[in-house]
Amino acid sequence: MTTDHRSCDELSPIRIRLEELHRRYQAFHEGTVATYIPELAHANPDWFAICLATTDGFIYEVGDFAQPFTIQSISKPFVYGLALEDNGRNALLTKVGVEPSGDAFNAISLHKTNGRPLNPMINAGAIATTGQVRASSPTERFERIRACIGRFAGRPLEVDVGVYESESRTGHRNRAIGHLLRNFDVLTDDPMADVEVYFRQCAISVTCRDLAVMAATLANHGLNPMTGERAISGDHVECVLSVMASCGMYDYAGGWIYHVGMPAKSGVAGGVLAVLPGQLGIGVFSPRLDDHGNSARAIRVCEELSRLWDLHQFDPPPGAHHAMRLAYTAADHGSTRSRSAAERACLRRHGEGIRVVELQGSLMFSSTERIVRDLSNRELPSFLVIDCHHVTEVNAAAAALLFELADRFAARGTTVLLTHATHLAPLEAAFRRHESRSPAESRLRFSTTDDALEWCEDAVLEKAMPSPPPRTLDRLADHGLVRGLTATQVERLAAIMKPMIVRRGDRLVTAGDEAASIILLIRGLASAWNPIPGGRDRRLATFTAGAMVGEMAFAEESPRSATVIAESDVECLVLQRSDFDSLRDTDPGIHAVVWRNIACAIADKLRKANHDLGVYDHAPLSRG
Amino acid sequence: MTTDHRSCDELSPIRIRLEELHRRYQAFHEGTVATYIPELAHANPDWFAICLATTDGFIYEVGDFAQPFTIQSISKPFVYGLALEDNGRNALLTKVGVEPSGDAFNAISLHKTNGRPLNPMINAGAIATTGQVRASSPTERFERIRACIGRFAGRPLEVDVGVYESESRTGHRNRAIGHLLRNFDVLTDDPMADVEVYFRQCAISVTCRDLAVMAATLANHGLNPMTGERAISGDHVECVLSVMASCGMYDYAGGWIYHVGMPAKSGVAGGVLAVLPGQLGIGVFSPRLDDHGNSARAIRVCEELSRLWDLHQFDPPPGAHHAMRLAYTAADHGSTRSRSAAERACLRRHGEGIRVVELQGSLMFSSTERIVRDLSNRELPSFLVIDCHHVTEVNAAAAALLFELADRFAARGTTVLLTHATHLAPLEAAFRRHESRSPAESRLRFSTTDDALEWCEDAVLEKAMPSPPPRTLDRLADHGLVRGLTATQVERLAAIMKPMIVRRGDRLVTAGDEAASIILLIRGLASAWNPIPGGRDRRLATFTAGAMVGEMAFAEESPRSATVIAESDVECLVLQRSDFDSLRDTDPGIHAVVWRNIACAIADKLRKANHDLGVYDHAPLSRG
Repeated sequence: MTTDHRSCDELSPIRIRLEELHRRYQAFHEGTVATYIPELAHANPDWFAICLATTDGFIYEVGDFAQPFTIQSISKPFVYGLALEDNGRNALLTKVGVEPSGDAFNAISLHKTNGRPLNPMINAGAIATTGQVRASSPTERFERIRACIGRFAGRPLEVDVGVYESESRTGHRNRAIGHLLRNFDVLTDDPMADVEVYFRQCAISVTCRDLAVMAATLANHGLNPMTGERAISGDHVECVLSVMASCGMYDYAGGWIYHVGMPAKSGVAGGVLAVLPGQLGIGVFSPRLDDHGNSARAIRVCEELSRLWDLHQFDPPPGAHHAMRLAYTAADHGSTRSRSAAERACLRRHGEGIRVVELQGSLMFSSTERIVRDLSNRELPSFLVIDCHHVTEVNAAAAALLFELADRFAARGTTVLLTHATHLAPLEAAFRRHESRSPAESRLRFSTTDDALEWCEDAVLEKAMPSPPPRTLDRLADHGLVRGLTATQVERLAAIMKPMIVRRGDRLVTAGDEAASIILLIRGLASAWNPIPGGRDRRLATFTAGAMVGEMAFAEESPRSATVIAESDVECLVLQRSDFDSLRDTDPGIHAVVWRNIACAIADKLRKANHDLGVYDHAPLSRG
Repeated sequence: MTTDHRSCDELSPIRIRLEELHRRYQAFHEGTVATYIPELAHANPDWFAICLATTDGFIYEVGDFAQPFTIQSISKPFVYGLALEDNGRNALLTKVGVEPSGDAFNAISLHKTNGRPLNPMINAGAIATTGQVRASSPTERFERIRACIGRFAGRPLEVDVGVYESESRTGHRNRAIGHLLRNFDVLTDDPMADVEVYFRQCAISVTCRDLAVMAATLANHGLNPMTGERAISGDHVECVLSVMASCGMYDYAGGWIYHVGMPAKSGVAGGVLAVLPGQLGIGVFSPRLDDHGNSARAIRVCEELSRLWDLHQFDPPPGAHHAMRLAYTAADHGSTRSRSAAERACLRRHGEGIRVVELQGSLMFSSTERIVRDLSNRELPSFLVIDCHHVTEVNAAAAALLFELADRFAARGTTVLLTHATHLAPLEAAFRRHESRSPAESRLRFSTTDDALEWCEDAVLEKAMPSPPPRTLDRLADHGLVRGLTATQVERLAAIMKPMIVRRGDRLVTAGDEAASIILLIRGLASAWNPIPGGRDRRLATFTAGAMVGEMAFAEESPRSATVIAESDVECLVLQRSDFDSLRDTDPGIHAVVWRNIACAIADKLRKANHDLGVYDHAPLSRG
């Protein structure tokens, strides 16, 4: 059925375990096939399937996973979800409660005074819920239910007419419930029409594979991971899972939570689905039922799976660790913008005031609480850059906490910037709001931390160096390339160099080209960019007056490794290889000193790269 | 009380929200103080506290957080935990069930035929549970209970004698329950002694702060995050939380799960504790009770907190993302061991067969399932290195899955190595087992990925280059330092270089020393090490014959940046700066070419460093 997934099957320890489990419980014959709906008695008691679906849309399936059977009570939580969408939480609560009854599935557990069924998982509550699905006719009501369950399963579903007719012929107790609900005005129209819709809904035909996908859709906040279609609003999923947890397994609800620990629902045709929220869905199908009306094999299989893979929801791995991946200041690790010696010295002095925190993983209350606590407990920096490159998701609570933190820090004079967060909608929205409240309405969101660091450094320099050093290098004599040469030697070198002007946006050098020259920046700004696979280019460095461009490829006689683009109009001096080589014989002393200076320029970059590698090499900071 | 925590309070959005909430509900006066134990009626109905404790031992506390009150029914889950430790899960289940009764707290809900109380959260079940705590006398039984609850609270707890005596005087219904339990042989000794122990346990005096710490201890798998003391075995925590979830809030259990979504327990003195497993604990205290016997303010406050901070356990952030941080092969990013040109070419060809995956975050079933699936779905490499540097924890299920994968891969000829995993006990144990089963019983665990890569590369080279190039450089003429010099020039340079032999373990250069020479390796192995803050040194590179050592600091005339240690006896040629400088005038041509070659050697290292930075710069690979 899913041949595209088979490639990994034979090595997958997960599939192998599921097959072992299936083999082992194939020999387990306890329980009896349900007969109270006569048609169900025709099921083959040996049918047996186990399926597991992940929230990224992968399915493990063993046994009779494509065998159709009727959904029965497993329809109840999904119809409850649809009724929630149609009525809202509070209105629906006035019609159907959410308390476990402690009674069997077919008990008529109505509230003593108002006739409200105790919960939507017992038959009375389910029939009342079906009646709340908005429709102008019973046919429309049923079709909306069928479409909704089909969105969960990811395919159109049909009714097993034989089972429907059999249940309709014999469902006197449910008809009695319908009339009682009408008596208490819980149902308001023709109660027998609602009961018929209910019978039809229970006779919808599904497979074990469908159950796993339906469960995974609940685990995935209502978004079907196979089709990408939304089956139900994510806001209602926690309500659906809550009634499954407290009332989903008839009068075995407490035992199920105790031994398995996942919200679940079973049906008398032998299906069980279980949901590990945020993670996965499980479907098991086998028709023999135990005394509580739950599939006997499914109960055992789910208990073993929960134990085997630690799926019990009350025994989760800690979720609060390691949200802080890295913390450093611009004194440790500045932007790639090249700076003059005076500027570098200034940033070494003041760089501690620019603090960067790299977050990672899933930001929710508990992980974000530690970040917020850590940041609030330190001396406030002048600038705080929050880098979300490695954050995989943010919920509303975490976004709100970071927003509040930014606002409070701003009130104390700390500028908070957000970077690499375009994939995190709630956080982007929060910071747009934060920007609009900042005094200067300045931009506080940057694509990259490098950009943000450059912006902060510029601000620090502007404040700390009111009369900044000239951004122009007027004399070649001030350039690192000629360090150690005599004035006469500098003049001789100058004589063979050629001025060049590059307009803003044009290229100084192009990656892959032959490295026939070294370029000295005299005025203006230029940036080197490296293409990175599958993404935007990565800025390697920004050069200002005094910088040397292209010396590495020049020395190695290898192609240019990066493209350098003028960010303003740029004035340069160009030393061509042929001219430089001509010095070898005429002026070998100049030649040697210039080569040494080239070696030093490359060494300077290597030192910075090694430093950055050291920063990355740290373990995450917040280990509990 | 916790002044050490105050520094961040005024900026913490969490504390601010808790204070707002406290202020708002201070004006909420619904409910009435319990009077069925006469002494409880003396409580000040306005007492009100909210505390939140994290699993790393931080407490937020507002209001009357130090006001003592009696624990009452909140003792039940903790005594149930103690009884689990004393009897084991199965034996205890024969005495007390785990099904919600749907009845009020004081109902005598016993199983119709065997007299077993339905669950340990109703009085009947709690008295039965107290009777299962192992002891040779009622006094010992009570003292063991008091000590256990004290471990949860992190301090010794006392009994409020007034409340105890008041309850003992009036507790006729509970005495009746005791006799019924004795009648069904659920209690086997003097039932009135057990009922007295129960009265005493309910009269233990706690504060709201205690409740939060007790809840955080349950959230932290039974380990008290304040004291570091184990209160209960982690294995039993999920059972305790399960009965709290299904039966903890009297006949409001279903509504509580629906609206709040955390396992919880309340007591008639006005306390409520709620647990978000793996993350945090909440305590709320206010004596006015609603119709279900739960603190009216606490119910509202917990509902608001759950909504505000998305704490509902059935609406978690996805936990399966981003466990794969980075994947690459040795062709992209090899070990720091320097190799000859022929070896490098060979590793470029065969390096695809050495695959490294860097994992991160919390490894549990769902995150590990994706890793296992991804690895099983690719062509098997010859070597697979699993790097756990950024993994924060591993549960038993995840360790078992990775162990099975390693075993199955090994059976197909893939060598699986584990690195940076010494902090992950279950995974280390699994791989020790895997090692013992590997054919050659070879070592498969390495401290660093660099070590593992070097080991894999050596294995690849040994196989691919049966007659390896000589590990010795016999002639200076073959060295990169003299590239482009004539034979005569090489001889003149050789004449000013001095041979040096360094014994294994000795230093070739020392970080911080003046860089007075360049060293050429002629025979043997040496490694450069950089100290990293707070950890072991980081290996920068390993040098073999043909390598140049110390040229960067030599060029810059700066101190040595790393220490280089001989890993075998090493033969070198040393070029002293003074000798080299003397060439400047006598042989300027040699001088210039050597400087160019030094520039190229540094450029080669820079190219590698930039490449490595590019590898680190990737976003995590598995984004859902």
